[in-house]
Amino acid sequence: MGLATLEEAGPEHLSLFTHPRYREAAEASRAGAVLVGPGTELRDRDLLEAPQPYVALAELLEYFHPEPRRSGGVHADARVADSCRLGREVEIGPFAVVGEDVVLGDRVSVGAGCVIGDASRIGDDTVLMPRVVLYPRTEVGARCRIHAGVVLGGDGFGFATTLGSHRKIPQVGRVVVEDDVEIGANSAVDRATLGETVIGAGTKIDDLVMVAHGVRIGAGCLLAAQTGIAGSTRVGAGVTFAGQSGVSGHLELGERSIVAAKSAVLQDLAPGSFVAGIPAVPHGTWKRAQALFARFPELGSRLRRMEKRLETLENRLGAAADSPPGGEE
Amino acid sequence: MGLATLEEAGPEHLSLFTHPRYREAAEASRAGAVLVGPGTELRDRDLLEAPQPYVALAELLEYFHPEPRRSGGVHADARVADSCRLGREVEIGPFAVVGEDVVLGDRVSVGAGCVIGDASRIGDDTVLMPRVVLYPRTEVGARCRIHAGVVLGGDGFGFATTLGSHRKIPQVGRVVVEDDVEIGANSAVDRATLGETVIGAGTKIDDLVMVAHGVRIGAGCLLAAQTGIAGSTRVGAGVTFAGQSGVSGHLELGERSIVAAKSAVLQDLAPGSFVAGIPAVPHGTWKRAQALFARFPELGSRLRRMEKRLETLENRLGAAADSPPGGEE
Amino acid sequence: MGLATLEEAGPEHLSLFTHPRYREAAEASRAGAVLVGPGTELRDRDLLEAPQPYVALAELLEYFHPEPRRSGGVHADARVADSCRLGREVEIGPFAVVGEDVVLGDRVSVGAGCVIGDASRIGDDTVLMPRVVLYPRTEVGARCRIHAGVVLGGDGFGFATTLGSHRKIPQVGRVVVEDDVEIGANSAVDRATLGETVIGAGTKIDDLVMVAHGVRIGAGCLLAAQTGIAGSTRVGAGVTFAGQSGVSGHLELGERSIVAAKSAVLQDLAPGSFVAGIPAVPHGTWKRAQALFARFPELGSRLRRMEKRLETLENRLGAAADSPPGGEE
Repeated sequence: MGLATLEEAGPEHLSLFTHPRYREAAEASRAGAVLVGPGTELRDRDLLEAPQPYVALAELLEYFHPEPRRSGGVHADARVADSCRLGREVEIGPFAVVGEDVVLGDRVSVGAGCVIGDASRIGDDTVLMPRVVLYPRTEVGARCRIHAGVVLGGDGFGFATTLGSHRKIPQVGRVVVEDDVEIGANSAVDRATLGETVIGAGTKIDDLVMVAHGVRIGAGCLLAAQTGIAGSTRVGAGVTFAGQSGVSGHLELGERSIVAAKSAVLQDLAPGSFVAGIPAVPHGTWKRAQALFARFPELGSRLRRMEKRLETLENRLGAAADSPPGGEE
Repeated sequence: MGLATLEEAGPEHLSLFTHPRYREAAEASRAGAVLVGPGTELRDRDLLEAPQPYVALAELLEYFHPEPRRSGGVHADARVADSCRLGREVEIGPFAVVGEDVVLGDRVSVGAGCVIGDASRIGDDTVLMPRVVLYPRTEVGARCRIHAGVVLGGDGFGFATTLGSHRKIPQVGRVVVEDDVEIGANSAVDRATLGETVIGAGTKIDDLVMVAHGVRIGAGCLLAAQTGIAGSTRVGAGVTFAGQSGVSGHLELGERSIVAAKSAVLQDLAPGSFVAGIPAVPHGTWKRAQALFARFPELGSRLRRMEKRLETLENRLGAAADSPPGGEE
Repeated sequence: MGLATLEEAGPEHLSLFTHPRYREAAEASRAGAVLVGPGTELRDRDLLEAPQPYVALAELLEYFHPEPRRSGGVHADARVADSCRLGREVEIGPFAVVGEDVVLGDRVSVGAGCVIGDASRIGDDTVLMPRVVLYPRTEVGARCRIHAGVVLGGDGFGFATTLGSHRKIPQVGRVVVEDDVEIGANSAVDRATLGETVIGAGTKIDDLVMVAHGVRIGAGCLLAAQTGIAGSTRVGAGVTFAGQSGVSGHLELGERSIVAAKSAVLQDLAPGSFVAGIPAVPHGTWKRAQALFARFPELGSRLRRMEKRLETLENRLGAAADSPPGGEE
């Protein structure tokens, strides 16, 4: 019983088919039944049709693979300052360090080797995987999931440069991660120079993402892997960043915007924008221009041929004298 | 005795010269002898010619700098669950945590501060540098080298979005790293939603690389720094990714393909492809188009001049009436 | 008393206004006074004019937020080899591991969970935040600030490939970080194959940056987040890399050059260059070409229309026979 990939499933498994690329694999699968979206046809198959197959998948996986109930308790090898306030059923792993005046909500889980700086606060049911670092005064909401190697609250990259020498501007702000946020492995969110760097409620961040000092990300955004957001930019609710995209500093990105993979946003975006490219332009424009890009050499030679033909005509008509002097390279 | 760079070598050292950029440095070097490829000439120099100078370099460095024999033994400050099975001569550093039912092969070395999740398995002679995290049920083959800060098995970035809210899809698969793999500092490989994320035997991964859930990378690939591979993509054997390249999800990349630096592969690649650009196109096309790109402003003005000349001709011939209405901006 | 953002400041706070985008916020702010650059006007406001407002900001923040005096002392849960030499007032956090023959200068602070490899050296007043890893023989200068998760001295990515198999080239060099360097969270600097990878004095590196083996970065450079520098490249003093930029290997970048965000430098740069694009070209060229890029589809249709008009003229003049055979697609 349970779920398995199309390749690995046997008659006792349910599998999933949503992406047309996998039709062949779905037809060849030994799965006992296949979860599909509305109206999907599949030969000789028992189908489990769901209006939103990924929501159904999430529910089924939660059913078949419930989160392990954690052991609870503070490990003897964790170092927790006496001034901390711990909620009920808090779990702290071995070799974790929890600084002075930290507040941990109920059922918070702090993984092995985490370091939680002084005066940080973590909300109920939040899980810190192993080796997360919170600089002092970091705030993380409830029901968050912070993956291994994440660093929250590192110094913002701020320097006053005079005569080639970079003087550090102390970064005295902090990082606030709201409720229901997930942050992927080895990502980094820097604290603000003044005030707060904010990750909005329900936002999901992938691995190796960088959020700079003073950025404010709205609720329900998605930041795919290796995305970077430069300092002081404000991102509205529900914005999606595809992988390896970037945004420069001091911008405003309107809600529900989409930034395509590898793109660089260099100016403000109106709500609902869909942009691509370096610098990012409307996605439709980018797509048409890119399609032509590969034909660029061909356009170059067409241009040359036309110049030739034009010259021929001009010569025949004795018109060359009309063209501006120096007009040809 | 030993090897040194061209600048630092003295008469007692062997140095290396393979890249034409360093001819001047090679000629000025005080090295006692210089290791070169077939047919290389260098004035007034003792040359050590090798058919494959980098293979010779590897052999010589192994000879002059043998890997230090490790001390062996489980450090008193490591926490190893009683249910683990350890091979012979296993070494585990201070403050490492090894979970329940973990199996470590012979001569495995687990660095200080590593966290190895329950039911993970590590093959013979594999080295985990300090502060590596393996999520539960991760499998690492024999003779691998996993660098500091690497995270294997983190949650894949999978959410079912309804009405702007992102519901987590539990990621119940795992990561399998085959034999002879090297993974660079602070890289992250996420576990599959279902089934496995696989890094093929002999593949070498540089620092800060991200491999997403369900990706399957074949044998003998090279992934240079900051590369990212999106979910479910399959990469054939012997594929090379230059630095900061990216691949989108659900693609198939044929074996021995090469992806140029900073490129983004957005569609399947036939075996032996060599691509560049965003989106990636055949490298030759990209190179010709890029060469023209910088001349783009010039092409624009050539176009404008031609339109002028054409208009002049048309006016002289009274031909304007033949051009389509609205044909001019 | 103290400093606050324009939005958060009350009458008891000083705030800052330098970027024109925030004029409205500055005018609406409740701040008691506003720090500005020379000649800035702001309605109904007490202004504190400074010739270099960011230098003044740095000074004021240092005054209002002095670095906390550290507790000092080696934590009972740190493991420090007997052969180490510690300066005066050294602080070492819990679960840090300091290897054999390490030398720490006066007032060095080693954060919780750091791992310092054998024979490394750290200069006076340098701070290692939690969970930094130094591979053996790494050298870090005085007054450096190395952020959480940084890995210095990992193996360079060097392999000798024969018949599809990648043989490791031992990396026997080391990393040298000079004085007054800052390195951001989760960045990685690899050690050289032979000789040294060098980060020059006063250089500031942001989060998630990758510096490959054998790179030499001059003094006073700035590397913004997610930048990558490939092997053996030499970067002159005072070079600026904007976010997500990259440089290929074996290049020389002249001093005071600027590389725009997302750009890829594929050839040497003269001193004082300002480049952008993939591959990077002079910034002015890139800007003009990019401006035209979005108009590319329009240029394509202008070209088509001209070809039509030219054909019309040629037909009228019976000139078609003069055009080269096969000249039309």
